[in-house]
Amino acid sequence: MRLGSCLYQGNSVVFVESDGHYYLPSLQNAHATFWKDIQTLIADPKRDEKLAEFSPNKSCMVGLEDIQLLAPIPRPNKNIICMGLNYFDHIVEAADFAGRNAKTPKAPIVFTKSNFSVIGPGTPIPADPDISEQLDWEVELGVIIGKTGKAIKPEHVQDHIFGYTIINDISARDLQFAHKQFYIGKSIDGGCPMGPVIVSKDEIPNAQQLQLSCRVNGVDKQTGSTEQMIFDIEQIIVTLSKTMTLEAGDVIATGTPNGVGFARTPPEFLKSGDVVECEIESIGVLSNPVV
Amino acid sequence: MRLGSCLYQGNSVVFVESDGHYYLPSLQNAHATFWKDIQTLIADPKRDEKLAEFSPNKSCMVGLEDIQLLAPIPRPNKNIICMGLNYFDHIVEAADFAGRNAKTPKAPIVFTKSNFSVIGPGTPIPADPDISEQLDWEVELGVIIGKTGKAIKPEHVQDHIFGYTIINDISARDLQFAHKQFYIGKSIDGGCPMGPVIVSKDEIPNAQQLQLSCRVNGVDKQTGSTEQMIFDIEQIIVTLSKTMTLEAGDVIATGTPNGVGFARTPPEFLKSGDVVECEIESIGVLSNPVV
Repeated sequence: MRLGSCLYQGNSVVFVESDGHYYLPSLQNAHATFWKDIQTLIADPKRDEKLAEFSPNKSCMVGLEDIQLLAPIPRPNKNIICMGLNYFDHIVEAADFAGRNAKTPKAPIVFTKSNFSVIGPGTPIPADPDISEQLDWEVELGVIIGKTGKAIKPEHVQDHIFGYTIINDISARDLQFAHKQFYIGKSIDGGCPMGPVIVSKDEIPNAQQLQLSCRVNGVDKQTGSTEQMIFDIEQIIVTLSKTMTLEAGDVIATGTPNGVGFARTPPEFLKSGDVVECEIESIGVLSNPVV
Repeated sequence: MRLGSCLYQGNSVVFVESDGHYYLPSLQNAHATFWKDIQTLIADPKRDEKLAEFSPNKSCMVGLEDIQLLAPIPRPNKNIICMGLNYFDHIVEAADFAGRNAKTPKAPIVFTKSNFSVIGPGTPIPADPDISEQLDWEVELGVIIGKTGKAIKPEHVQDHIFGYTIINDISARDLQFAHKQFYIGKSIDGGCPMGPVIVSKDEIPNAQQLQLSCRVNGVDKQTGSTEQMIFDIEQIIVTLSKTMTLEAGDVIATGTPNGVGFARTPPEFLKSGDVVECEIESIGVLSNPVV
């Protein structure tokens, strides 16, 4: 199932996308498929049976002109949990830029992006030179936790995943490097485009075999495959949940392949008027203008 | 005013503390002083007038045996925003430990602690050697944002502060150092004791002149003053809000003075059976057992 959140008549509601059409479970009151938000849906232990009962039909179909797509989880309950340097070719380009030798991290490098920075597909990414002159792109596979857990064993990881989405981990490089820890540079307002939908895990048999790419103004910048991750999704979830409870609705950004702007010769950054598109196989395209 | 959150008859409600007694505005239905949680209170533009109307009296007084103190903000709306290396003597001890020269950061070092890690006064901090063998203490002044804002000017910073609390920035040093970025080591479950109350800013004329200290099993470990901050509260709020909106209810931990465990000779860490007390002048004592 492909689902997400949208504004409809002033309210943020859950939608289901099917064959390019949008259906609102909230319009089918006869069904027990009304959730106040997508976190409630994800955390509902009966969500799978309820969703299976839901039949997308004309009674609850809305046109794209009737809704405004939001991020699938417009306001996550905590900051986005993000993996740094999780693709080797990205480590190489970052090391080259810094004049160091590329070294694979022995343990996952984990930082966060503010949950306030989340924006939906089509929403402008603000590029304000007074804030940053080095706004960069990073296409990433987002993993949505579906069941709260601690000390999750490798063989149970799949039970704790709800689905997958696309995240553009917008990074203000000047701030990221100046402040040492990444939080400020990764958390500018509008710095976390997410969407356009969450694809439930049953539709993605192997999340470690997905092509992902990023284009700026139609020009390819990043291309890679999630099979290149140094710490794969299973290792990430096992590592995180060893020390901290992962909650239903948590969002994990799993790192980006090479091709980011700061490591290019000459460096390239986003500017007003650009359009960034992040694409992941089986999920779709997340497109945002820069203003 | 001194206020916080507590469990009363199974619900999390706001309390006001006065002369060592606890009063629940929710028991005074005649007054418009009922908020569903403390974030709603903090974000209420009329909160000051409503609170001024509230008269703590026997009709809404509860005994300590009737309530369980929680963190003043039991579940912040985003991760706790934390300053690293913001007291020079702490930079010196950390540099000595690493065999480096002490260097004052040119820009604030900012990371986050998971909002899930927040616990209240008296709640046990779990010490599990399978998770970390290097659990450390850090007393910090917590600043609570009272009014949402972006690009806050120095002269307006005070308008955006609601009050102050105490935070024990529990740090799993082995994880913090192994994972490079601090998030994992700073976010173990139970790793963010907060409380016992928020003191509104009107009761603290100068938050940069507060003594703060940490004791383990009654033995002094840290003593300092908030005047030693490298980046003071005004600079922190100006810097953060330049790039990201600060929201009413956001919590900022402003860094810790010297005397932490990992930099001692020999290093000292928390173990099961210990009691950690963090004290800040005009606020109180935040005490937590380690189990």
